[in-house]
This record gives sequence, structure tokens and C-alpha cells, in this order.
Amino acid sequence: MTRVEVLAIGTELLLGQVVDTNSAWIGEQLAASGIDSYYQTKVGDNLGRIVGCLRAGLARSEAVICCGGLGPTKDDITREAIAEVLGVPLELDDDVAVRIEAMFGARGRVMTANNLRQAEVPRGATVIEQQRGTAPGLICRMGDRSIYAVPGVPHEMREMITRAVIPDLVERSGESAAIRSRTLRTWGMAESALDEVLTGRMAALDEARIAGRPAPTIAFLASGIEGLKVRITAKAPSADEAERLIAAEEEEVRAVLGPGVFGVDEVNMEAAVIELMRERNLGLSVAESLTGGLVGSRLTAVPGASDVFRGGAVVYASSAKRALLGVSDGPVVSEEAAIEMAVGVAKLFGAEVGLSLTGVAGPASQDGQPVGTVWIGLSAAAMGGESAHLIRLGRYGGGDREQIRQIAAISALDLLRRRLIGSVGET
Amino acid sequence: MTRVEVLAIGTELLLGQVVDTNSAWIGEQLAASGIDSYYQTKVGDNLGRIVGCLRAGLARSEAVICCGGLGPTKDDITREAIAEVLGVPLELDDDVAVRIEAMFGARGRVMTANNLRQAEVPRGATVIEQQRGTAPGLICRMGDRSIYAVPGVPHEMREMITRAVIPDLVERSGESAAIRSRTLRTWGMAESALDEVLTGRMAALDEARIAGRPAPTIAFLASGIEGLKVRITAKAPSADEAERLIAAEEEEVRAVLGPGVFGVDEVNMEAAVIELMRERNLGLSVAESLTGGLVGSRLTAVPGASDVFRGGAVVYASSAKRALLGVSDGPVVSEEAAIEMAVGVAKLFGAEVGLSLTGVAGPASQDGQPVGTVWIGLSAAAMGGESAHLIRLGRYGGGDREQIRQIAAISALDLLRRRLIGSVGET
Repeated sequence: MTRVEVLAIGTELLLGQVVDTNSAWIGEQLAASGIDSYYQTKVGDNLGRIVGCLRAGLARSEAVICCGGLGPTKDDITREAIAEVLGVPLELDDDVAVRIEAMFGARGRVMTANNLRQAEVPRGATVIEQQRGTAPGLICRMGDRSIYAVPGVPHEMREMITRAVIPDLVERSGESAAIRSRTLRTWGMAESALDEVLTGRMAALDEARIAGRPAPTIAFLASGIEGLKVRITAKAPSADEAERLIAAEEEEVRAVLGPGVFGVDEVNMEAAVIELMRERNLGLSVAESLTGGLVGSRLTAVPGASDVFRGGAVVYASSAKRALLGVSDGPVVSEEAAIEMAVGVAKLFGAEVGLSLTGVAGPASQDGQPVGTVWIGLSAAAMGGESAHLIRLGRYGGGDREQIRQIAAISALDLLRRRLIGSVGET
Repeated sequence: MTRVEVLAIGTELLLGQVVDTNSAWIGEQLAASGIDSYYQTKVGDNLGRIVGCLRAGLARSEAVICCGGLGPTKDDITREAIAEVLGVPLELDDDVAVRIEAMFGARGRVMTANNLRQAEVPRGATVIEQQRGTAPGLICRMGDRSIYAVPGVPHEMREMITRAVIPDLVERSGESAAIRSRTLRTWGMAESALDEVLTGRMAALDEARIAGRPAPTIAFLASGIEGLKVRITAKAPSADEAERLIAAEEEEVRAVLGPGVFGVDEVNMEAAVIELMRERNLGLSVAESLTGGLVGSRLTAVPGASDVFRGGAVVYASSAKRALLGVSDGPVVSEEAAIEMAVGVAKLFGAEVGLSLTGVAGPASQDGQPVGTVWIGLSAAAMGGESAHLIRLGRYGGGDREQIRQIAAISALDLLRRRLIGSVGET
């Protein structure tokens, strides 16, 4: 069993100027590869303290992944700290230097001399070739222990962890088995409900493993306002075999969860909706009140959204609901208003499907409706005409304005998704 | 000088299921109070490892703030770990228990027995009374060292840190001086430009301090797509005196930065715009293409936005721009289209001011315009009529779709803000 720690380096992380999201991402990758990680530490740009953290990490784990502090400025001292721990000097790596110079050339920028600091590597280290940024990564050995160093820029870090660090860790773990995982993303079920419906399946898998039969594992991951994830992980002598185990288990889990599963791995709710609409060759328009454009902005964040999304009306004021969408007099947080908004916006943009949201995000109640009351309207001739659905959020003191808006947005998209796959009313 | 560490507790943090934003926030509060913090650690729900981290923290810092692991489930073992480090038993605190029961009663929920675990406190600990959640916080002494424990739920954590932890730390530091800070939020200036214009002022402050005169300090904080922050911190014998120093310095810094400053402390760009519009009794409507509703959703996230925001049109498709807003034939990423969109949306919602965004978020170029081209249109009779402004984003390989959308949104709001204060064209 290999244990790996993450050491995030940078005074800006301690001061809270930047939130360290890198460690969480690395932790997720390690877990998916079956590697244990018991500690993650943040430390500032201070040589003595970085050295101390590296030594403490190597004393209790087989490897430490350093993240950050590889840039060109005098604050970037991860290289120096690693060299001190290893007891070796830093040496200029000519290949790295050439690549740095070439990168500046290609971007038409002049390279200042301090950039060559990034070409200095601890003697004996293996370089992880830089492909996106100018700083290379490092793999260093110290007896049976390893120190890895990757840049703090997230997309550079991710690329190097995936390409070089995880494969090296897996190889050194002596684990010849392949580990694969797949995440099913769900919406509309509480964690306790998921737990209840999957308990039997999880017990069966445990039994199979105890009996020595190949069987994947299932884990739940809370994902905040993006719903709950069910991760299936399989370990097998070959990648093909691991994939086969996962595919079979996915079928079992889907049979239990039904339409609660909206996507796999990186597919979020808006991408799932756009794909379903595209397959059916349907156009979508959205009328938003309390969400003020959130649904539209989520949909248009998906590349290729223009195939499906026709437009949106942000009708925050009651007068706008009436003037632009033909909502009749009467309360605007209501079933009738939600349906009129959906019908009106579909007509306005000439879309086959209209989706609407009207509700009370707070802080004050409205039309006698409490904070958290949300009506979602749907107008879709191809899918049974018009309907409206009431949801009540934040009843137990949560009542946070932004959370109500966010949950309302994803709930509306989920309602449309379920209607598209013909499963509204089921869970 | 007091040194304080943060220990974030929870296996979900190590697995990357939840990003630890609490430590960063606490780090920011500590820095603003003049307290040093050299290490932040994440550890899982494991008694031995939590105890080890607490001991290591107390060996190198005067205090450790534990965050998380105070809930009712059997995974929540922060209380046990602290008791073990202190060498004392856990005891039921009747007052805490009564408050927990009362909270369940008030919310009409039945309390399960495990909730009373939250009323167990290490003997001798001072309770930080729970006000939002069911778990109280803790203040524990161990010789001259302190252990604080607060819940991991962000809003509960923040409230307790502000109300109880920071004041206790400041009192114990023996620091009789008052430390106050104020953050000026800026948009439109690069860090190097800020540095250049403020270098003289910072040198003058350094000189004053060296000469023993009272003088605040200035620091820059990058804040990603929300711009750059300039933080003024002052230390003085009294709070009044510290506030006076800050007010005087704010005037100096504002004189240098001019209209680049859009808000103070928690005031974000959308709140600043809404306040300026409200003061002028103007209504706003927004036409969004590439941002797909982002500007509307930001504006409506501000409580009281309805005083100002009349509505928005998400005209992602060219046909929608023409049909709904009367944009004429021709390229839609252009000065003309931006102006027509702004004029059209102001008319559609009967607003005094129309703001529009049209551009290329990518991944593909459009109308021969490269990714990152954004036109912002403004229509406002009260402020000199119609105009359009071109910005080019992501020219140096950045070009990330979501980043372009986000920067376009805040840039449009900033343009309107500058127009409202009569400073478009200046920086």
C-alpha cells in the first residue's frame, strides 16, 4: 500500500488570497488510483519550513507531491528545498532551458534571465517535461521514497499529475493490477435514500470480494449543489477486465437508481440536457425570474449549446413577466404564472420547448409565499403539453438566497431532463 | 507574536469530494488581525492521525484551530481527539444539550439520540455557544497553548471565528494595539501597473514606520477574475486611531488609483453598480449573447436588485438578436450589433439604461473574429447616449471559454460603473 501526501506551497495559500483547489483534485486522482493519502499540508514560501514539511512527509508516507513554487521569481524555492532534503546541488538542465527559450520565442515574448531558474534541477532528478507552462516538473528519489514537484497553475499541474506522477506512483507501488473508476452523477435523491437502495448491492459486492471473486466497489461522494455521485471502482489483472467489471456494475447500479442518474464522469446536468435536446432535434428557451439568468448561463457554458439553446428572458420584475411573456394579472409565484412564462418564452424565441422558473429567493417572502418556494413551468408540445411543478427549498433554516437560486436552476434542468427521457414523476 | 495553525478535519477533504475553503478564509482573518499562520493541514477522520497533527501543531505554534468533525455521527471525532491531547475525559454539557433539543423543537424535527454527542465537551473547555447549527465550538487551554474547535459548515464556522476565536487570540497575544484593515477592490489594472503607481506611496509608509511614526501598510491581493485588492492595515493604540489611519490612507490610495476602485471590503462589482444606479434612480436591462445570462444572474444575486434591474434578454442565437432586439443584418460580433442590442433591450424592458454583450467565447472563431473578441454596448440617454467598447481577451493562449465569459461579464459591469461615475476612458 502506497501512502502519498500533498504539500501545497505558497504564502498566498496561507493568507487566503488563493484557495488551494489543487490538493483536492490530486486527492481525488490518488483515491481513484487506489493510493492512500492521509495528510495534505499548506506551507508558505519559506525554505526552512518547506524542508521541514518535506522531511515530516517522507517520514510517514512513501511519497510527497509538492505543488507550486516552481516559477521564475525569487519566492519560488521548491527546487532549493528539495535539493536540500536530498543533499544534492541544483544543476542547470540544458534541455529544459532550450524548451523555455523556445516557448518565449513562439509567443513572441522576450525572456527575462530569471526564467532560467526554472531550468535548475536537483542533481539526479528526472524532469517531467513542461508542455503547457515554462516550469518542468520533477521526480526525485530518496532511497525507497519519492518527491514529486509540479507547478501550482492548475491546468499545468493536472496535465503532469495525469501524464507522469500517477503512472510513476502506480508503477512503484508494485501493483500490477489495473484500477479503473467511473462516476455516475445523480440528482433528486438524498444520501440516505441512495444508501438505502444500494445497501443490498454493496453487501453483495463485499461478499463476492471476501469469497475471492472479482468485484468492484461502490462509494458515494457528495457534490454539494451538483448532486450526489456514485463511484464504481474496479481492480483487475488487466485494464480491459477492469473496464468490463465496471460496465457490468454500472448496469446494476443504473437498474436500481433509474432516471436519477443524469450523467457519467464529467457530464454535468446542462450538458446532459443539451445532448438529449440535440438528439431529439428540439430547441429550448428559458424564462427566468428568481434565477436571473443562471439557467441560461449554465446552458451556454456548454460548447455547442447554440445547437439547442434559442434564447432566454430574464423577467425579474413582475411588469416584465406581463409585458414580455403575457403573464396574466395575479400572483407571479404560482402555477399559472410558471406555465404562462414557459409558453410565452417558447413563443417569443420560436422554440419547441419553454422552461420557466418563478419563486422566492429571499431575503423577504413574496405574495404570501415563503422564501424557498419555486415553481418550474414547462411547455413542450412534443412532451405532453404544459405543466408546472412546485419545489420548496430551504425549509429548515437553510434559506440562503444564492443556494436557493442554484438549486432552483439545476432542479429546472433536471425536470426537463426527466421529461425528455419520459420519466417525470418517477425517481 | 502569536502563531496559529489551521487543522481541517474530514476524510472527504483528502478525497477531494469537498474543497477546503474554510482554511483559506480563516487564514485571511488571521492575517487581517496581525496573527501569523505558517501551516495549514488537512487530515481524515482518524483519531490517531488527528491527535498526531494536534500535537505537531502545538509543538510549533501557540494555537491550533480545528475545523470540522464536530457533528453528531460516529465519524465526528474532533472532540475525542482534543480530549486525548489534553488528557481529560469528555463530559456532557447540560446547557449545550438543552440548546440542541430546543433547536430541533423550533424546527419541528425529532432529535435522534446521536445529536447529544455534540453536547460532550472535554473537561475544562470553554464552550462557544452554537447560534446557527447544533454543534457548539470549543476553546481549550493546555498550558500557554490553545486549541480551538469550530464546525466545518462554512457559515457556522465564520460566525464563531469572528465572534469568539479571533477576539480570544488577539486578547491572548497580549497585543494591546488595535489592528484594523480595509480592502479596496479594483478592476482594470494589472498587478504590475498597481505596483508601479503605488510604489512611491509604499516607500513613504515604510520610511515613516522606520522613523517610528504611525503608518499603515499596503498589500496587494490577487482575486482572480474578481480583480485585484489593495489592503490597508493599520495598528494603533486604539481602534479609533487605527480607523483614522486607515481612512487617511484610503484617501491617499484612492487619489492614486482613481476610478479603478469599485468597492470596499465585501462590496462586489454588481453591488457597486446596483448602488450607483439606485442613487440615480435609473433602471437597467441587459442583452447577453456570449455570457448567456451571467450578467443577469450576478446582478440578481444582490438582495434588492429589483429596485434597479428591469430584465434581461439572453439572445444567444443571431436570429434572436434580430427578432427580439431589432439587430440589423450583418455580423453580430460588431460595434453596430452591440449598440443595437443595448438600445433594443432598453426599449424592450422600458429601462433608462441598456447594457449589451456580444462576442466570441470559443472554442471556434465567429464572423472572422478571433476567440476572445467582445463588444460591450451601452445605451443611456442620461449618460451621453449610445456607445460600444471593444475588449480582446485571452490573446496569449489563455482563451478558456468560461474565463472569457466571466471576464466579459465583469468588464461590462465595470464599463457601466465608470460611465455612471463619469469616468469612462480613464483608468
